[in-house]
Amino acid sequence: MNALDSNENGVKARECIEDAVKVLLEGLGEDINREGIRKTPFRVAKALREATKGYKQKVNDVVHGALFPEAGLESGSGQAGGAGGLVTVRDLDLFSYCEFCLLPFQVQCHVGYVPSGQRVVGLSKLSRVADIFAKRLQAPQRLADEICTALQHGIKPTGVAVVLRCLHIHFPKFESALPDTSHQGWVKILVTSGSGVFEEEKADIWAEFLPLLNFRGISKENAHPGVPHQPWCPSQSCNKLEQSNSAMTNAVVSILKSLGEDPTRKELVGTPCRFLKWLMNFRNSNLEMKLNGFLRSRINNPSSCGKVGDTEDLICSELSLPFWSQCEHHLLPFQGVVHIGYYSSDGLNAVGRTVLQSVVHFYGFKLQVQERLTRQIAETTSSLLGEDIMVVVEASHTCMISRGIEKFGSSTATIAVLGRFSSDPAARAEFLQSLPNFCSA
Amino acid sequence: MNALDSNENGVKARECIEDAVKVLLEGLGEDINREGIRKTPFRVAKALREATKGYKQKVNDVVHGALFPEAGLESGSGQAGGAGGLVTVRDLDLFSYCEFCLLPFQVQCHVGYVPSGQRVVGLSKLSRVADIFAKRLQAPQRLADEICTALQHGIKPTGVAVVLRCLHIHFPKFESALPDTSHQGWVKILVTSGSGVFEEEKADIWAEFLPLLNFRGISKENAHPGVPHQPWCPSQSCNKLEQSNSAMTNAVVSILKSLGEDPTRKELVGTPCRFLKWLMNFRNSNLEMKLNGFLRSRINNPSSCGKVGDTEDLICSELSLPFWSQCEHHLLPFQGVVHIGYYSSDGLNAVGRTVLQSVVHFYGFKLQVQERLTRQIAETTSSLLGEDIMVVVEASHTCMISRGIEKFGSSTATIAVLGRFSSDPAARAEFLQSLPNFCSA
Repeated sequence: MNALDSNENGVKARECIEDAVKVLLEGLGEDINREGIRKTPFRVAKALREATKGYKQKVNDVVHGALFPEAGLESGSGQAGGAGGLVTVRDLDLFSYCEFCLLPFQVQCHVGYVPSGQRVVGLSKLSRVADIFAKRLQAPQRLADEICTALQHGIKPTGVAVVLRCLHIHFPKFESALPDTSHQGWVKILVTSGSGVFEEEKADIWAEFLPLLNFRGISKENAHPGVPHQPWCPSQSCNKLEQSNSAMTNAVVSILKSLGEDPTRKELVGTPCRFLKWLMNFRNSNLEMKLNGFLRSRINNPSSCGKVGDTEDLICSELSLPFWSQCEHHLLPFQGVVHIGYYSSDGLNAVGRTVLQSVVHFYGFKLQVQERLTRQIAETTSSLLGEDIMVVVEASHTCMISRGIEKFGSSTATIAVLGRFSSDPAARAEFLQSLPNFCSA
Repeated sequence: MNALDSNENGVKARECIEDAVKVLLEGLGEDINREGIRKTPFRVAKALREATKGYKQKVNDVVHGALFPEAGLESGSGQAGGAGGLVTVRDLDLFSYCEFCLLPFQVQCHVGYVPSGQRVVGLSKLSRVADIFAKRLQAPQRLADEICTALQHGIKPTGVAVVLRCLHIHFPKFESALPDTSHQGWVKILVTSGSGVFEEEKADIWAEFLPLLNFRGISKENAHPGVPHQPWCPSQSCNKLEQSNSAMTNAVVSILKSLGEDPTRKELVGTPCRFLKWLMNFRNSNLEMKLNGFLRSRINNPSSCGKVGDTEDLICSELSLPFWSQCEHHLLPFQGVVHIGYYSSDGLNAVGRTVLQSVVHFYGFKLQVQERLTRQIAETTSSLLGEDIMVVVEASHTCMISRGIEKFGSSTATIAVLGRFSSDPAARAEFLQSLPNFCSA
C-alpha cells in the first residue's frame, strides 16, 4: 500500500466503491448482510484499488538508478555496431482489467530491447514497468503500446519490442436460456508493439526477436498477421442491456470514477452496461423456474433413477461439463469443469448429459463458492441419477491472480460424495482415476 | 513493507546486512565502489529482508475472519458424513531460502484439506499461510510440516495434506578445476505432510488427494516413497571450506542474526561455510590463469581459426553449453545455456566443445550481468573460431523470483554478434532458427 491509500482521498474512494458494490449485490438479489458476502464490498474495493495502482506509479521512479554502464555497446549504433545486442525477457505473468467489461485478464508478456548509449537496464525493471501499465483498465493493444513507449522514453534504447499474449474469460451467451457451452476456455489474442529499430513490422530485427519466442508458439505469422484484430472482449458487441437497471449502472460509473478513470472516455462509455451483462448472469434465482419444472417431472416418474441391485452396478461418469460462476467473496469469475460419477446397472446416464449440464449451469450462475457449488450439484444430481453420487469440480479462480495473491496457473479441485461413494474408498478411487488432466489457462 | 521495517531495529538490521555484504564483495576481490555493485549491499539487504518477512507474520492474522459457514459439512464427521468433501488448491508458486546454503529455492505447493465444523476457508488463505512459512530460511520437509501444522491449528479441519515439489540450483563441483557439467538443471525433491485424517500415509484419503495431482506427475509412489529422502541441498556434504576466510564467515553469521535467526541452530551451524562454498566460485579472476594459457597457445598457432573464403563457409554451432553465474546486482544465481554460432569451411569446430565450455565457465564464474557475459564470450570465442561469431545466452534468474518480482517461469535471452553476423540478418536468422526450445525450471 502506498501512502495515498491511507489519506483522505483514498478512504473516500474506497468508501465510494464499497457503496457501489452494495448496490450491485442488492441488484443481484442478495442479502448484503449474509455472512459470506458481508465483507465483499470491502474486499472488492481493496482488490480493485490494488489492481489499478498503476495510475499512481511513474516509470522514471522505477528505471531511475537502474541503468548500468556496459562496455561494448556503442552509443547510437546498437546491435550492428558491436557485440552488444538484443536483450529479451520472456514469460512475465501479469494481469490487467479489461476496460470494456471490468473483468481481469491474464497477460503473458515478452519484452525485447536493443541497448544503446553503453547502458543496460536491470532485467527486473522491464517487468516492473510492464506492471505499471497492466495495473490499469486496459485493452491488449494499448497495453503493448504503452509498455513499449514507456520503455523507449525511460531507458532510451535503440529499440523496444513488446509481445503480449492475453487471455480473457469467455462470456456465456446471455440471449439463450441455457448458455452456449461450445466456447470453453479462454479468448486469446496476440498483440505486438515496436519502437526505434522495431518500429517497422518488417524490420530484420523482428526476425531475431520472434525466434526467441518460438518456445511459446509465437511466430512471424501470428505476431504480425497483417489484418486488424477482431474485437477481443466477448462483451464488445453489447451496447446496452435489455433491461437496464439505472441504480446498478450508476454504481459501476461511480466505481470507474473512484478508480481515477473518466467514465465518458470513448472506450468506457459502454463499460457499465457490459460489466452488468456479465454480472446479471449471476442473479440470485436466475433460471430457477426452468430447473424446478424439470425436477418435478423427474419426481413424477422416478423409476429410471431408482436403486438397483448392488452387484450389477457399474460406476459411470459424465466428465468435463463446463461451468461459469462468480466468486461471492470478490465478485470475480471462476470457471472450469464438473465431473459427475454415479452408479448404473446398464452403464447409461438415465437423464442425459444436457440435463446434467443444465444442473451445473443452474448452480454456477449465482454468486458462489466452489465448495457449495460442488455440494449443490451432488445433492440435485442424486435426485436424478440415484443416491450414490460423486462430484469433482476443477476451476481457475481469477481472484487467485488479480489481487495481491497473483498465483498464476493455480487451480482448485473440490469433491462431494453421497451414498456408496461416502462409504467406499475404492469407489472414490476408481472414479478419480478416470478424470482427465485439468488445464488451467 | 510492514511497520517494523521503518523502525529502529529494522534500520539496524538492514545496515548490518549491508556491512556484511560489503565484506563478502571485498572477499570476492571486487571494488565495492564499481557502479554495477555500489548499490548491491542495499539491494541484497532489501531482498533478504523481504524474503524472510514470514518470521514476523502470524497465521491467525491471515485466517481470522476468513472462515465461512457452509451447510452440509457436518461437524467432526467431514467427508464421510455428508456431501462436503476434500478441497484442494494446486500449483501455488512460492519460493523460499535454503537454510543450508542461503540460496533461494522454488516451491510448487499443493494443499488439500477436509472441512469440518461446517466451515470452509477462503481459498487464497491457503496460499497466504503457505507463504508465511516459505518466507523464512527453510528445508523442504520442515516447510511442508509447518504449513500443514499451521493450517490444522488455524482452520481446525478434519485433516490437512501438503505436497511440495522443490527445485534447488545445482552446485558445480568445486573440487575440479573445470566444473562437472553433467548436473544440468535443478535438484528436485517431492515432500509430503499430513495431519488429522491425512496423518497416516496409508490412509484412504491420500488415494483421493493424490489423483487430483496426477496432472503434475505426482503419484502414490513418488509422494510416499517409503524410504527417507537423501540430503537435497547440494552443499550439505560440505562442512568446511578448504581455505576459510574468517571475515567472510563472520559476515554470513551476522546476516543470519540480522534476519532474526539463531546461527547456532543445528541446521545453520554450517550454513556460512556452505554459502561461501557457492559464493567463492565467483571470485574475481577465478580460473584466469588456466584460460590465459590456452589463449596464448592459440595465438602462437593461429592457422586453424583463420579466415577462409566466404563462399564455401557454413554456419556452424555449439548449442546448449551450460553455465552458472551470479548476478552482481543481487548476489543471486542465474543459470542456463550458451549457444555459439560461427562460420567454418569444413563444418568442424576447430577447438572442440570442451574449450568453448571452459570459455563459458571462465566468464560465468564471476559476479556478472547476462549482457556482459554474452559479449565477453563472443569476444573471446572470436579469437578461437574466427571473427564471425554469434552468441545467444538463455538463463533463469533467481533474482526474478526471489524478491518482490516473483516472476516464476520467466527467462532471459541475450545476443551478441561480431563480423558477418553483425551485417547479415539472414545469417542471424539462420542461427536463431537452429536453437532448441529453452526450458526454465
